[in-house]
Amino acid sequence: MKSDVVPLTLEEIQAPVSGELDAVFEEIATILRADVPLINDVSEHLLRIKGKLFRPTLLLLSAQAVGKITPKEITLGAVVELIHLATLLHDDSVDHSALRRGQPTVNAQFSHEVAVIMGDYLFSRAIEQLVKLESQPALEIMSRVTNELTIGEMREVVSYDGLDFSEEDYESLILAKTASLMAGACELGALGGGAEWRDPLRRYGTDLGAAFQIADDMLDYSASSDVTGKPVGQDLREHKVTLPLIAVLPSLSSVERALMEGLMANPTPDDAEISQAIGIVDGRGGMLAARDRALELAQSAEVELDVLPHSNAREALRASITYCVERSR
Amino acid sequence: MKSDVVPLTLEEIQAPVSGELDAVFEEIATILRADVPLINDVSEHLLRIKGKLFRPTLLLLSAQAVGKITPKEITLGAVVELIHLATLLHDDSVDHSALRRGQPTVNAQFSHEVAVIMGDYLFSRAIEQLVKLESQPALEIMSRVTNELTIGEMREVVSYDGLDFSEEDYESLILAKTASLMAGACELGALGGGAEWRDPLRRYGTDLGAAFQIADDMLDYSASSDVTGKPVGQDLREHKVTLPLIAVLPSLSSVERALMEGLMANPTPDDAEISQAIGIVDGRGGMLAARDRALELAQSAEVELDVLPHSNAREALRASITYCVERSR
Repeated sequence: MKSDVVPLTLEEIQAPVSGELDAVFEEIATILRADVPLINDVSEHLLRIKGKLFRPTLLLLSAQAVGKITPKEITLGAVVELIHLATLLHDDSVDHSALRRGQPTVNAQFSHEVAVIMGDYLFSRAIEQLVKLESQPALEIMSRVTNELTIGEMREVVSYDGLDFSEEDYESLILAKTASLMAGACELGALGGGAEWRDPLRRYGTDLGAAFQIADDMLDYSASSDVTGKPVGQDLREHKVTLPLIAVLPSLSSVERALMEGLMANPTPDDAEISQAIGIVDGRGGMLAARDRALELAQSAEVELDVLPHSNAREALRASITYCVERSR
Repeated sequence: MKSDVVPLTLEEIQAPVSGELDAVFEEIATILRADVPLINDVSEHLLRIKGKLFRPTLLLLSAQAVGKITPKEITLGAVVELIHLATLLHDDSVDHSALRRGQPTVNAQFSHEVAVIMGDYLFSRAIEQLVKLESQPALEIMSRVTNELTIGEMREVVSYDGLDFSEEDYESLILAKTASLMAGACELGALGGGAEWRDPLRRYGTDLGAAFQIADDMLDYSASSDVTGKPVGQDLREHKVTLPLIAVLPSLSSVERALMEGLMANPTPDDAEISQAIGIVDGRGGMLAARDRALELAQSAEVELDVLPHSNAREALRASITYCVERSR
């Protein structure tokens, strides 16, 4: 990664496909429509929140980098965003989260029950659209991805188990939970081009997604709640073990180790305990170690792009790497 | 329906395909295996409960009635059972049910979180297997079914809304929630035979499924908890409005109506209120009306079978109708 490059904003990254992203958003609205008023109410709530459409962005840029964007890619863009939304609904519901992107979650605004069922609805609608495309490769990619996503969610349950969650466990978790869908989005985008682009774009998406998740987990140690929409140290508070902490575990003093174990054993750690833990992780170099790993993955993602023909879309994919690693939200 | 026929047991109905049902069960166990210990623990729990495999039974009997059972049908049988199990996991989880088939539910035995994620896992594994079969018709049938299932779950949320839930609403609900998957199972079974069998077998499954659900809802008014594994009047207690009640609403006296409204407005109705309500529904002919509708659907299911070639499998499908309507559990 060239560290002297000024990071592009998401809007700048999305510029080569901005019209197509609008079409994806319209497509999502169309797909969600049902003759059950409650479903439409929840859909409206979801569409109001909208989100960054980052996964469709990756899909469309990949498609443009190796071929061109057709109506099929618009539908595939909607499919990956719907799958992403479905996982968010279930995550927020099982975590009892109240806010997502600064807005009330579906479980908070409607009910836990509605959030679970609506997640199932989004998922089944996405599969339905995918089946209509009659593309066996697209089906294979997405069935692999959705399977990995659920395995990732289950690995996440285990990640709350305390200080024996290893770096290897963590990598398996983020590959399944986050990288799989970004990899799938890039690979789906590659389907319209030559067969030789599928593997490099899938690997790019995998590395990008892993870097994205590490950066996200780092925010929990550093960012204010204005940026993330959740209080700092929330992961620690919930005993969720991520890379900055895992990286320092071998070098903790016995006093520090005892403090961390105390935090993990305390169902409701207070603010002082959380700040102290964050101080230890940062002081022992946990943030630097996590950043190093994210930059390593970023480097590896960038190498995959070198084989693609030169295009604005390829440069936007390159800029996405910096966006993921440097993003403040 | 010939009312003088002695109903066959489920075991007798399953006899023509009993070896294949064992293969379906083995296939389910194979599909569920993962390298996440928690997933395997939950899978073992699910496999121990096992269930009646009624949907795979319908699929295999349909396949045998119009052709023959191949490894493809075994996989399809596993797919429909996995989808069924996924909906049960989510249903039990959002309803906070503690028991299913007399065993602890996954949400009770593990956690709510694990139940939601495991449901997603079963669903994604089922889709993955389906995609591997490379059968566009099978994919179309199951994507229609899973979509209807989620819409049915959402309609069910609304069914707790009180006494303005109409018979039409109820029929839409049971068609989506229950009949869709039985119809899909029969239609999938028909795929191996001539194209002419798909529509009749789908319609048979639809009518059978609707009759099955009406009979199930009637049990809540009549059966002891030994039979259903849940206390009598549980639906009423949860303000779930089903056909026996809907059927008598127009003929209630103003006193009876007020009593029903009181029950619906009371978050925790007591046993006396529940028994009184059951007495009113039964006294006003709600059970008879529901049974009439179930028998009408049964009749209609039976007519669909008349076009099939004579076989033991066809007779077992015929016996399934009586089993659904008369079943005590």
